[in-house]
Amino acid sequence: MIIILKQGAQKDKVHSLVHSLEESGLHINYSEGSHTTILGLIGDTSAVDTDQLAAMDIVEGVKRVSEPYKAANRKFHTDDTVIRIGRGAFGGGHFGVIAGPCSIESNEQIIEVAMKVKEAGASFLRGGAFKPRTSPYSFQGLRDDGIRMLLEAKKASGLPIVTEIMSLAHYDLFADVDIIQVGARNMQNFEMLKELGKCDKPILLKRGLSSTIEELLMSAEYIMSSGNTQIILCERGIRTFETATRNTLDISAIPLLKKLTHLPVIVDPSHATGIASLVPPLAKAAVVSGADGLMIEVHSHPAAALCDGAQSITPAQFASLMQSVSALAEIEHKTLF
Amino acid sequence: MIIILKQGAQKDKVHSLVHSLEESGLHINYSEGSHTTILGLIGDTSAVDTDQLAAMDIVEGVKRVSEPYKAANRKFHTDDTVIRIGRGAFGGGHFGVIAGPCSIESNEQIIEVAMKVKEAGASFLRGGAFKPRTSPYSFQGLRDDGIRMLLEAKKASGLPIVTEIMSLAHYDLFADVDIIQVGARNMQNFEMLKELGKCDKPILLKRGLSSTIEELLMSAEYIMSSGNTQIILCERGIRTFETATRNTLDISAIPLLKKLTHLPVIVDPSHATGIASLVPPLAKAAVVSGADGLMIEVHSHPAAALCDGAQSITPAQFASLMQSVSALAEIEHKTLF
Amino acid sequence: MIIILKQGAQKDKVHSLVHSLEESGLHINYSEGSHTTILGLIGDTSAVDTDQLAAMDIVEGVKRVSEPYKAANRKFHTDDTVIRIGRGAFGGGHFGVIAGPCSIESNEQIIEVAMKVKEAGASFLRGGAFKPRTSPYSFQGLRDDGIRMLLEAKKASGLPIVTEIMSLAHYDLFADVDIIQVGARNMQNFEMLKELGKCDKPILLKRGLSSTIEELLMSAEYIMSSGNTQIILCERGIRTFETATRNTLDISAIPLLKKLTHLPVIVDPSHATGIASLVPPLAKAAVVSGADGLMIEVHSHPAAALCDGAQSITPAQFASLMQSVSALAEIEHKTLF
Amino acid sequence: MIIILKQGAQKDKVHSLVHSLEESGLHINYSEGSHTTILGLIGDTSAVDTDQLAAMDIVEGVKRVSEPYKAANRKFHTDDTVIRIGRGAFGGGHFGVIAGPCSIESNEQIIEVAMKVKEAGASFLRGGAFKPRTSPYSFQGLRDDGIRMLLEAKKASGLPIVTEIMSLAHYDLFADVDIIQVGARNMQNFEMLKELGKCDKPILLKRGLSSTIEELLMSAEYIMSSGNTQIILCERGIRTFETATRNTLDISAIPLLKKLTHLPVIVDPSHATGIASLVPPLAKAAVVSGADGLMIEVHSHPAAALCDGAQSITPAQFASLMQSVSALAEIEHKTLF
Repeated sequence: MIIILKQGAQKDKVHSLVHSLEESGLHINYSEGSHTTILGLIGDTSAVDTDQLAAMDIVEGVKRVSEPYKAANRKFHTDDTVIRIGRGAFGGGHFGVIAGPCSIESNEQIIEVAMKVKEAGASFLRGGAFKPRTSPYSFQGLRDDGIRMLLEAKKASGLPIVTEIMSLAHYDLFADVDIIQVGARNMQNFEMLKELGKCDKPILLKRGLSSTIEELLMSAEYIMSSGNTQIILCERGIRTFETATRNTLDISAIPLLKKLTHLPVIVDPSHATGIASLVPPLAKAAVVSGADGLMIEVHSHPAAALCDGAQSITPAQFASLMQSVSALAEIEHKTLF
Repeated sequence: MIIILKQGAQKDKVHSLVHSLEESGLHINYSEGSHTTILGLIGDTSAVDTDQLAAMDIVEGVKRVSEPYKAANRKFHTDDTVIRIGRGAFGGGHFGVIAGPCSIESNEQIIEVAMKVKEAGASFLRGGAFKPRTSPYSFQGLRDDGIRMLLEAKKASGLPIVTEIMSLAHYDLFADVDIIQVGARNMQNFEMLKELGKCDKPILLKRGLSSTIEELLMSAEYIMSSGNTQIILCERGIRTFETATRNTLDISAIPLLKKLTHLPVIVDPSHATGIASLVPPLAKAAVVSGADGLMIEVHSHPAAALCDGAQSITPAQFASLMQSVSALAEIEHKTLF
Repeated sequence: MIIILKQGAQKDKVHSLVHSLEESGLHINYSEGSHTTILGLIGDTSAVDTDQLAAMDIVEGVKRVSEPYKAANRKFHTDDTVIRIGRGAFGGGHFGVIAGPCSIESNEQIIEVAMKVKEAGASFLRGGAFKPRTSPYSFQGLRDDGIRMLLEAKKASGLPIVTEIMSLAHYDLFADVDIIQVGARNMQNFEMLKELGKCDKPILLKRGLSSTIEELLMSAEYIMSSGNTQIILCERGIRTFETATRNTLDISAIPLLKKLTHLPVIVDPSHATGIASLVPPLAKAAVVSGADGLMIEVHSHPAAALCDGAQSITPAQFASLMQSVSALAEIEHKTLF
Repeated sequence: MIIILKQGAQKDKVHSLVHSLEESGLHINYSEGSHTTILGLIGDTSAVDTDQLAAMDIVEGVKRVSEPYKAANRKFHTDDTVIRIGRGAFGGGHFGVIAGPCSIESNEQIIEVAMKVKEAGASFLRGGAFKPRTSPYSFQGLRDDGIRMLLEAKKASGLPIVTEIMSLAHYDLFADVDIIQVGARNMQNFEMLKELGKCDKPILLKRGLSSTIEELLMSAEYIMSSGNTQIILCERGIRTFETATRNTLDISAIPLLKKLTHLPVIVDPSHATGIASLVPPLAKAAVVSGADGLMIEVHSHPAAALCDGAQSITPAQFASLMQSVSALAEIEHKTLF
């Protein structure tokens, strides 16, 4: 960490700052320039409060030079984390595909989709029971009933299931869910992250609409610092000025995250753009850019979907896409099962 | 609402769509152009699912022409909502000032600040007990103890108190809190909004970092649709490409929100930029742009603050700022008490 | 186009507006709702000024329902535009690769790179003579001399050349340049676009840092409306809140642009992120998402480059990348030569 | 400047880097930590190429700690630059108001507006002759004729005039223009900036839609480094995700720029939002946040304006606004004339 001092900072205040930092176990390197004087802090600075330093009247600015995350940092854990459930896995050369409808609507609907995506090659079934909708007047999901239907579909298809939690008050309903999803809007619901850090299920952590890559890793760090290290990161589009697509898929985040962390990284091309015809090209882009998996919305009748129909593809389109994904995964030396 | 049909949409499918929309009580206006055919939907379209329409293969696009919010809409409630507590109020010509430290650190600290901001003219005391911090290694707030200290300061100063809730699990601790704050990161924590819609306390709803003005109003609508209409909206800066300030204060949002909604609108210039020296000019800008109040971080020793010291001003700076605020509020025909 | 009228708009003013619009050759469809009345404008609205309509006191808003671009619109020109020069081509199933250094530094440097990228499979040589640099104190390019060196390298390698124009005052220097590049910062330099619309060389038009996909197409429309229809569009990253990469590559723009326009679309993964190690994965993502080509910075000694070394790959890395690009182009049924 | 080295960087390469930096006149401070080793560069680093350093295989990152601009930097020129023309001035306690129509449409129109805004208290007349429009099918300005009409209005009203240059090819037409405006889209048209740096007229430099505050100052530096130090900076809204307003006025930029530079800073509230009713509150916010002036679009019949009518206010509204501006300028100890 670097502290840039203000021009003309009083010597005694500087000495007292250096002294207090040294007392906290850091080694301080002092560099005086013509216009700028800097202090280099050597040692473990993850507990140093940059805000507090920046508030001092002798300080012009503070810059971190090392990453503020540890447990998620590949520098300290070079091997890929691999998350395996049933026949599917994410990370370490394994490519997992999660597919299913945005919302669970009925027993028949979810079972039908489950059987079809399984046949096409998906390893995991997704379906929303609790739905975060911008409007209170939109369909909010079947809630408890939805979870029950999803469990039926798990039994019928044999596919492990992934579904989103929106409140810790619903936690008990997730007992037989295989992967708990934290949605983009809850990526910085820190109280929830801490609690999920105590459970023994893998967490699918979606990047917030305006969260940086570093903030995504810090949210993973919240879960990991409570004990749970089974985390799958998911890029699902960020909010930008562009309005032609719902969000902007940050494809660069994939190879960058793979460099920064050992956790598996997957892509949700459905939410990223909100346009069904863009899902196949973006899913393919995800595979070749280094992703460890995909999460895709599939609905038998998109135009009748109770939510996000515009971004859902049909089972037939999904089956066709899976052939491309499969061919590309092979080129990338990734195993689909 | 407008539905734009694809070129060459099959007549029978169009007729069937028109028929089903009419059955739901809407009147449909059909306009056929050379390249574009549009359907105008007349009536209450707030329950119409635009996603579902957009997913139909004959539909090219769907555009709303009326606002999706009702309870918060000034068109249907022309008079300002006024929220009064103790000697302070927001809206309807009343200008309320909330001040206090980012975090509650000790009984002495919070009581000292409370007395000073009261003396300078604040009507409400703020202080964080539960702190949303990006890093799990940063100070997380004194939690239960913090709430207790804040209640002591309320008693000592007579000022009503405002503090942030981060989980419904802590709700019971807020029994004597006067205004419950929903932070930017929880603006779309819809399960929490629904529950807070059932309580009888005013809610201070902060705009999310990447939430549009319409989404802010839709989140207010969540609370209002559960019964609680006492909502104060707070602009606190949005996330943009600019890195010289922590966030970008969207000052235009103030006069725009005042036009769109009857709810009071306040500004938090401290979080908006993260730089103490910018707080006074932005606070003044808020007053003259039509805001109904301010929320300002004040700390007796910013450089020793356990959180966000860089954006806190001292009690002396706050007292000086309040003189300017007071003069400008008078010009704007707003009452401070 | 849709005009949304204000509540309580005076009947006579509305009639007079309808009358004047009809006089300009449009058919007007009038839909009166309980809270909202809308006018649907049927016919060619590309000459209608939305700003002027929006300024009327009876108008609440104006929304376009058809695209404002014509010449670039795929709806009116379904076949792909193909641009062929030498052995390379863009569009219509042809995939073109442009490679070379950010800046031309010497005769030896540019000839060496030219021979190497040709050998690795590039069809075009790039090199900057005029460099847009944020700082006036940074290297500004070799200018006239740079163009002369690039022409030498064209002769030596036989590769057609691409280079950026920064001012019409330099136009004569571009007589033997094969493709003229308009950089991101000049995408809305409309006076320059109009002039380039009069020349007979293909124009490589890069998307502005904060330009929407529609604005990019409108800038192409400027060139086309002056007569030149040989345009290659280039996605090179947009500016967002994310700071981990220099820009955010908008990969969704590729399949979307291919749907909206018949013009070829290429990707510049080097400028998109500014990080050399991300160039290969993003280049591959571009191929499978439907791009018609790539533009890649290659430098023999990145660390000694006079500009943008951090994003340049070496000739060896480029050769290796071309093998992957070649394999993926085949899967996508694209011809490299 | 700080260079962060990669873990395990070879000692000999580090020594050779340190040696070459020292040879260029810098003093190097070496700090070796457990995980991170940093080099502090002491001295004038404005000529150091960060890209080149970042491209070295032993370097993980490079961070500037001092501003890259010198001529515009308040650290080296503490006194305000004051720009005076006629009865108006910007900076050093002077508040200048520029008003007039977006586009010049006729002799009568521009003279009528000129007389009215002068009467209301404006010190400068604006009017666009060359108009940057997104669409080639929109009105492009009266060009040469427009400049001639503006000069007539200057003669008639006695007001100095401000108008935008879109190409150096038109430079001769600007001989009698008092302040030359560089529009947002040309803020990084570096070839134009260099040429304008050689002229003896004040330049009104508008911030680009997605340009950072530092980039705005670097563009000013381009002009200043060519000799012209008479620059007025103009904040006119930046592009963000918010679509309720055309752009987002970055009000924080005003006090921040005043701290960073000695150049005068003004605000254009008309382009910032594109909504006439928001112009007065934002103009007032500009005054109290420390701006040195305003630039406001005034049109006698906004609904008949050939460009940007939706954001223009009438002469009567302008006169009323000037009363508020005048009162606030007095409170801020600024002189209007």
